[in-house]
Amino acid sequence: MSEEKTIEWIKKGVAQGYSRMIDQTLLPYEYKKVDISTTKGIYDAIKTMIVRGAPAIGIAGAHGVVIAAIENKNSADFINEVKKAANYINSSRPTAVNLAWAINEQLKILDDNKDKSNNEIIELLVKNAIRLEDEDIEINKKIGQYGSEIIPKGAGILTHCNAGALATVGWGTALGVIRSAYLKDNTIKVFADETRPRGQGAKLTTYELLRDGINTTLITDNMSAYFMKKNMIDVVVVGADRIALNGDSANKIGTYLVAIAAKYHNIPFYIAAPKSTIDAEIKTGDEIVIELRDKEEVTIINNKLICPKDVNVINPGFDVTPSELISGIITEYGIFKPDEIHKLFK
Amino acid sequence: MSEEKTIEWIKKGVAQGYSRMIDQTLLPYEYKKVDISTTKGIYDAIKTMIVRGAPAIGIAGAHGVVIAAIENKNSADFINEVKKAANYINSSRPTAVNLAWAINEQLKILDDNKDKSNNEIIELLVKNAIRLEDEDIEINKKIGQYGSEIIPKGAGILTHCNAGALATVGWGTALGVIRSAYLKDNTIKVFADETRPRGQGAKLTTYELLRDGINTTLITDNMSAYFMKKNMIDVVVVGADRIALNGDSANKIGTYLVAIAAKYHNIPFYIAAPKSTIDAEIKTGDEIVIELRDKEEVTIINNKLICPKDVNVINPGFDVTPSELISGIITEYGIFKPDEIHKLFK
Repeated sequence: MSEEKTIEWIKKGVAQGYSRMIDQTLLPYEYKKVDISTTKGIYDAIKTMIVRGAPAIGIAGAHGVVIAAIENKNSADFINEVKKAANYINSSRPTAVNLAWAINEQLKILDDNKDKSNNEIIELLVKNAIRLEDEDIEINKKIGQYGSEIIPKGAGILTHCNAGALATVGWGTALGVIRSAYLKDNTIKVFADETRPRGQGAKLTTYELLRDGINTTLITDNMSAYFMKKNMIDVVVVGADRIALNGDSANKIGTYLVAIAAKYHNIPFYIAAPKSTIDAEIKTGDEIVIELRDKEEVTIINNKLICPKDVNVINPGFDVTPSELISGIITEYGIFKPDEIHKLFK
Repeated sequence: MSEEKTIEWIKKGVAQGYSRMIDQTLLPYEYKKVDISTTKGIYDAIKTMIVRGAPAIGIAGAHGVVIAAIENKNSADFINEVKKAANYINSSRPTAVNLAWAINEQLKILDDNKDKSNNEIIELLVKNAIRLEDEDIEINKKIGQYGSEIIPKGAGILTHCNAGALATVGWGTALGVIRSAYLKDNTIKVFADETRPRGQGAKLTTYELLRDGINTTLITDNMSAYFMKKNMIDVVVVGADRIALNGDSANKIGTYLVAIAAKYHNIPFYIAAPKSTIDAEIKTGDEIVIELRDKEEVTIINNKLICPKDVNVINPGFDVTPSELISGIITEYGIFKPDEIHKLFK
């Protein structure tokens, strides 16, 4: 299984460097890394989903703060300029909390080291960004380890969207659980929802799992209940973009529908996500801002319209699965009932 | 609103003619009719979905029997040759019962008129086919009239796949209900599931509804629960391809998932279908054969792969919604609770 970082900081001498990431818009057709060295570039990479997945865009945000610091290193108002740039990057996508969380981890470095030189601060930001990268992989392996215990022998596992190595720095959250389960039992079978409109399941999840030799069946998003009824799915595992203190979990649009279907068929439904995905500032999912994305994501596939061009479209990027539909939240600290997740903050 | 027949028999003198139908694989990009005058042509038109929708393929089947009779009119074994061709046409798609039903309506003509000349029989088959066409529109208008009574003022209505004029000879079943409701109340709003993999919702339903000036929003198949939660959907109306005597209803893949979501949100879920969609030979949905279709319908969109080419795919064309999830079945004889539908056969 691949152990490379899907996104990483490349150091080039003192207080210099750039963010290197896989361009996920090209997969599975082309595997290509891009190097980004401007805050505008980071903003655009997140916005256009060159990098996507809550933990991965967190790291992109952390890199963005380093880049903002490099860009402003001769500024008279260094600290404020970097903070302004950090706000700009944070505005690229509203739903995933990991972006705000990772940026905040960097801003703490900034605040705690105001007395140091700008170059010294930049070096500390770089160090902190690399710490976040490394921790992300460690955290995912712990999530995988805990999560693998809830996967029955020979299970059929449904996942939605991509919560894989590509959504993180490596290993993955939901796919981390699947990878860890596969290391113990290579007879598991994965069903991957294609995940319209962007197709991350079809493009990225199948790509990752096939590369690892894991038995994978691609289905359209409207088929999950059919396979549940046929007893071909034993458990559902997905990632999350923001989790409220009561366990309500925002994830890719369609997750809520899968959770309802799982409940109807008495199939356990798990969220796999690091603690950094939990937003301790909000009590319930009602407070989560859902990003509305462009109409063209729905109406155009492979550069061609799939419908009359003047049809109205509403394109929410995420939905919220209420805690009552969630069997457990798999974190690096163990598996929690949704109504116990708040204990992580005591 | 358009009153033209989407499929019709074109008479060309005594015991001659052909089937004319809209090529639905070209919509919404191109509106074109094709004329079909061979049984192989009818078989292929159904199989490749030039014509689709349970009532419409029924009419195509009825036309197919006329064509088989014309093709065999000089055969020494006329009756048996036509029956053989009818079986062949009936094998084109397994799930919708209307195909078998309409072919059977034609075979009755054949059996009841064995003493007549072949040309006379052909003329009777033509007459019967045109009767079925005309009755289909009348039936749909009755379905529309009954169904419009369950649509609340200003309702948000979700539909899945295309059960419109294009799925019938005209007016439509589920879309017939919507059309009839719209004539009473032009403030209704329709949400159309795109209906992967073939996209009949995106391509056909939006096309039909926009042409009639009905407020229509296209959504992906994984969004229905999001809009239900937001109280934007008051009722679900879909068609059916085969209904068992206990009310279990087979319809386009994804219908079952919508029905589960509707139940979870306490939103009424209706099937709109003519009596000919009910298969009095089967007691429950477990007996309905579900067509498994080609992998490429899922993996290729607009002539380009959307996933790694060697991924496994299972592509069921339909699923079965159990009667417990169905609020009512709207027929030309009124609206029935699923467990009362068997009364139509007493």
